[in-house]
Amino acid sequence: MKALIVYSGGLDSTTLLYEYRDSIALAVTFDYGSKHNAKEIAFAKENCKNLGIKHLVIPLSFIGQYFRSDLLIGGGEIPEGHYAEDNMRSTVVPFRNGIMLSVAVGLAESNGLDTVLIANHAGDHTIYPDCRPEFIEAFDAAAVAGTFEGIRILSPYCNIDKRAIALRGRDLGVDYSMTYSCYKGGEHHCGRCGTCVERKEALEGFDPTLYDN
Amino acid sequence: MKALIVYSGGLDSTTLLYEYRDSIALAVTFDYGSKHNAKEIAFAKENCKNLGIKHLVIPLSFIGQYFRSDLLIGGGEIPEGHYAEDNMRSTVVPFRNGIMLSVAVGLAESNGLDTVLIANHAGDHTIYPDCRPEFIEAFDAAAVAGTFEGIRILSPYCNIDKRAIALRGRDLGVDYSMTYSCYKGGEHHCGRCGTCVERKEALEGFDPTLYDN
Repeated sequence: MKALIVYSGGLDSTTLLYEYRDSIALAVTFDYGSKHNAKEIAFAKENCKNLGIKHLVIPLSFIGQYFRSDLLIGGGEIPEGHYAEDNMRSTVVPFRNGIMLSVAVGLAESNGLDTVLIANHAGDHTIYPDCRPEFIEAFDAAAVAGTFEGIRILSPYCNIDKRAIALRGRDLGVDYSMTYSCYKGGEHHCGRCGTCVERKEALEGFDPTLYDN
Repeated sequence: MKALIVYSGGLDSTTLLYEYRDSIALAVTFDYGSKHNAKEIAFAKENCKNLGIKHLVIPLSFIGQYFRSDLLIGGGEIPEGHYAEDNMRSTVVPFRNGIMLSVAVGLAESNGLDTVLIANHAGDHTIYPDCRPEFIEAFDAAAVAGTFEGIRILSPYCNIDKRAIALRGRDLGVDYSMTYSCYKGGEHHCGRCGTCVERKEALEGFDPTLYDN
């Protein structure tokens, strides 16, 4: 396997980066104008450098310009509380995984790679349609049909939750102080938004994160 | 149906724009750094203005920067002759339709639209994997699974050729002098590249195009 990883610099994809480090030829981070992109990207760069993995940052400025989501700079307030459809739906960026995967597939084919790795997980399924297994399966079929080399999508965490990912990462020696999750994008993690709450639960017992609350 | 059309300003998608004009709320042209984008985009803008359809140009500059294809500025020479796998394959931009469709699906969901129109046709199938019916079907399934509103991909020309499209456009009153096809991107159509040869065949008997050869 010669893989490209869709790599945000967050907890899940950093674990995936470590787990598949020997098969990854290229890590790609997308800057789509979210409030927390700048913080994530800095960690993404640093982790790739430490592992000796080639890293690209691809700007997708049209998302910030034309898409509606509270996750984006210029969008509304980030909701606080637990991940739940009611209050987190406003943070969905429509078809974000579809867009990142399609660019990744094109880049993979341009660079002679055969697999695209993505770290969507079971905890995302309720809120984000483009994190669900049926989306990944259909997109995988589209990538196979739409490329000369039949590029595949590999989503190893699709059916496990964030806690299981974090436990896996602990065993792999991932330094989670070098990852960022908070949707608000502040200097420290806010500790109150949905992603912070989920991060606290996932890292319970070995959490190196500095939270504001 | 409230549709977004992936609209290049070429012969096929201009015909589709005319055919579905009453259902189209937004036309989107992608500037991905090809040699002929500038010429196409000028016609795309003009046709949308004439039909009173809202039009966006989305730059995808990462394609020109990181993808390999002779179609792109900075790529090799555009091959001459008939559309055939041997000489035209160098003009493929990997997974281009996947990338354009995924951005279109996200934009459609952001704007309350339910359908994405694309003008891929039967003459493209040999060369371009992401123009084939099996790709469109799989991508449609991914769009349905990956969006809240179950956005659909509609590809009305998928099983007809460019000649059939042009005959349809003639009946619809499309002015084909307001479309551009040549991959070389010159002031006039070169008349020798694969797309020019295909254009001549499609428009035979009512061709308003000025060719250099």
